[in-house]
Amino acid sequence: MLIVKLGGSAGIDPGPTLDDLAELSKTERVVFVHGANATMDEWTRAMGREPRLVYSKTGQVSRFTDAETMDLMLAVYAGLVNKRLVEGLQARGVNAVGLSALDGGIARGPRKDTLRAIEDGKPKVLRGDYAGSITRIDTRLIDLLLDNGYLPVLTPPALSDAGEAINVDGDKLTLRLGLALGADALVILSNTAGLLRDLNDPDSLVRQIDVSDPASVEAAMEAAGGRMKKKVQAGVDAVAAGIGRVIFADARVPQPVRRALAGEGTVVMASAPIGAEA
Amino acid sequence: MLIVKLGGSAGIDPGPTLDDLAELSKTERVVFVHGANATMDEWTRAMGREPRLVYSKTGQVSRFTDAETMDLMLAVYAGLVNKRLVEGLQARGVNAVGLSALDGGIARGPRKDTLRAIEDGKPKVLRGDYAGSITRIDTRLIDLLLDNGYLPVLTPPALSDAGEAINVDGDKLTLRLGLALGADALVILSNTAGLLRDLNDPDSLVRQIDVSDPASVEAAMEAAGGRMKKKVQAGVDAVAAGIGRVIFADARVPQPVRRALAGEGTVVMASAPIGAEA
Repeated sequence: MLIVKLGGSAGIDPGPTLDDLAELSKTERVVFVHGANATMDEWTRAMGREPRLVYSKTGQVSRFTDAETMDLMLAVYAGLVNKRLVEGLQARGVNAVGLSALDGGIARGPRKDTLRAIEDGKPKVLRGDYAGSITRIDTRLIDLLLDNGYLPVLTPPALSDAGEAINVDGDKLTLRLGLALGADALVILSNTAGLLRDLNDPDSLVRQIDVSDPASVEAAMEAAGGRMKKKVQAGVDAVAAGIGRVIFADARVPQPVRRALAGEGTVVMASAPIGAEA
Repeated sequence: MLIVKLGGSAGIDPGPTLDDLAELSKTERVVFVHGANATMDEWTRAMGREPRLVYSKTGQVSRFTDAETMDLMLAVYAGLVNKRLVEGLQARGVNAVGLSALDGGIARGPRKDTLRAIEDGKPKVLRGDYAGSITRIDTRLIDLLLDNGYLPVLTPPALSDAGEAINVDGDKLTLRLGLALGADALVILSNTAGLLRDLNDPDSLVRQIDVSDPASVEAAMEAAGGRMKKKVQAGVDAVAAGIGRVIFADARVPQPVRRALAGEGTVVMASAPIGAEA
């Protein structure tokens, strides 16, 4: 069983990924997860507002999600982008079903309505955030769809314990889902070739991160900057928790999923049983 | 089995309908269909455009759906409004699953990309319309969800024969679905009490349309104006085709679904077997 995540950065044509999904889903159980970050920024500006990105003390960036931003998130992630991907798959003869993680209570967790952040250089406490973390995955709906020949197309937001829509990280959703479904491989496609030691040098690609080798993990975490640090850590955690392979690869090439499965990109795996890290 | 449609006109709070759905779905198979017309207009204007409504020669109004309008329709119908309703049901303990009629190929039909209309008093041929009619309903996904305890929440658009998203009429989607699923009753809720002989007089409500009595149908069609004509005709057709009851009722009252089922509103039924009309 395979999970493919397509990131929502600018400049990604989903076509080649959809072509691969159409081919691969003929012979394998596949779940497709996607983001919509660039379209979200675009629509926020088209509605006359500025995306409000806030930084934690440790430098991690997140989108402040007030009720209006959640409206836009539902519209862009679960509506526009999700259904255009479903349409693209249906046009390729794949019986796709688009869902948010709200639907069927797929992903749930506590809402954290207060965000501590640094804005304009000052520490601030922002209230009214519709964001949270995932503590429970219910795979029944996904299994039901897969058992009956449908390809699930999944996106944030998720459901809070009180039944509210909450913004959750798309990569984390993918990894949690992968663990719950017992996926053999997760392919995380974005607008970079994988983990690069030097962002300006495509030849500096880290080809492999061996989770059973602490030195390999340490070197990878040192090479990763910004958002990539979070991604790499999540990939390492997923392999430590039992997923065979997590592959970070480029969405902007022909056959991006098949190339990733063939080893292009950064492959996170374990060459030996993992000890204390698991 | 019951199908409830909630119209998307302005001034409708979905809360009472969701309360009823939570109660009724405990003991009955229920499918929920919804529109989003007023929110669609609002978002179109917020994006700096004007809704483009066009009139046919016979005076029927429709929304010209170019590619940009379809983007907005996917965002507003299948995203914002659909997922806020799913959220409202989940918060009421109902395991709702939101879908467009694209998903799982629920409703399909030919796209008609050319629209002949009267605009500014002149006949025009508008090209690039993403609209069409429904000729096939695939109930497998809906049945699968109902069989497994989920409440399907469905909205346009549908899927063209070529795999494109197409705008279809929400009432017609409801009626076609009702026929395909063998529904006992369709409850169509909107911002009117039902079919009124005089729009300004709530006491002029037509309480019953008997499809087995041609005079009753004729009187109803005479009383109906504008959009209501299309609705009444569709209701009559549905009962003639075998659905037990179609009820047009007010969404703006407490327990709107239960009141409709108890006979409030305009009830379309047949008191005797239907002859030539079927």
